Amino acid sequence: MIREMTKEDFAAFWPCFESVIKAQETYAFDPEMNFEAAYQLWCATPLKAFVFVEGGQVLGSYYIRANGMGPSNHICNCGYMVTEAAQGKGIARQLCEHSQQIAIELGFEAMQFNSVVSTNTVAVKLWQKLGYQIIGTIPRAYRHKQLGYVDSYIMHKQLQV
Amino acid sequence: MIREMTKEDFAAFWPCFESVIKAQETYAFDPEMNFEAAYQLWCATPLKAFVFVEGGQVLGSYYIRANGMGPSNHICNCGYMVTEAAQGKGIARQLCEHSQQIAIELGFEAMQFNSVVSTNTVAVKLWQKLGYQIIGTIPRAYRHKQLGYVDSYIMHKQLQV
Repeated sequence: MIREMTKEDFAAFWPCFESVIKAQETYAFDPEMNFEAAYQLWCATPLKAFVFVEGGQVLGSYYIRANGMGPSNHICNCGYMVTEAAQGKGIARQLCEHSQQIAIELGFEAMQFNSVVSTNTVAVKLWQKLGYQIIGTIPRAYRHKQLGYVDSYIMHKQLQV
Repeated sequence: MIREMTKEDFAAFWPCFESVIKAQETYAFDPEMNFEAAYQLWCATPLKAFVFVEGGQVLGSYYIRANGMGPSNHICNCGYMVTEAAQGKGIARQLCEHSQQIAIELGFEAMQFNSVVSTNTVAVKLWQKLGYQIIGTIPRAYRHKQLGYVDSYIMHKQLQV
């Protein structure tokens, strides 16, 4: 089930979130960010945040926010995370499909990912399968903990005209 | 002379800022933004903001901020504005060259512009002349007040390795 995220949900999700940012392989978030700062960033500041819940467990989450202001506020941005134990079960795909529906309901016309780490091939392939295109490559955009400097992709999908 | 911007400077610059955002031709800022919100966005939230002053008049300004967090915080972002009366005098170029020096002093390795409106050819050509490359095109990214939907460019320059 996918539903809006509460602060309690974020607390349950925090161990996953913390391990993702500490790994420094996928997200351009401060790896030392504390719970409250992470909650603000993921849940409070965005327009909405959702969780994927199964058997009372939070297995994944995403947020949605406007990617630009004023004359660019018709493009949204989302971020997705799935717990390590729940990976490979299609949850990221379900979250992304849900977010596209929510984006349309909120009146957004397109979705943009500003920093998909190029070495995160599972994510890149999934977004491509779901209709997102690489519209730009930022050279040396991400200091990957294992691989050093790697490029990031900007990905984009038109949702409605 | 280029020096750090005070709130008084921003007040002097506000008529220019307001007319730029109301025109909805170049900046993805809310055209109805008030003085205080604009001050926060341009001066208070960024790392630094500067003004170009000549004969006691504020003729231009720029801000510099990190474009990403954590493993991407080595790339900065800047925004530049020059008053209409002072355009064509090379002030934008001076501001941009100054910002590259400041970026290096602050330890940034590259600079990225996230939304250069493609129809703003004066800006696009100037940034290209100063070594910035178009690394991506966002389709229909900007609702131009005169032209309707137009693309935006993502531009990037490596400053140091």
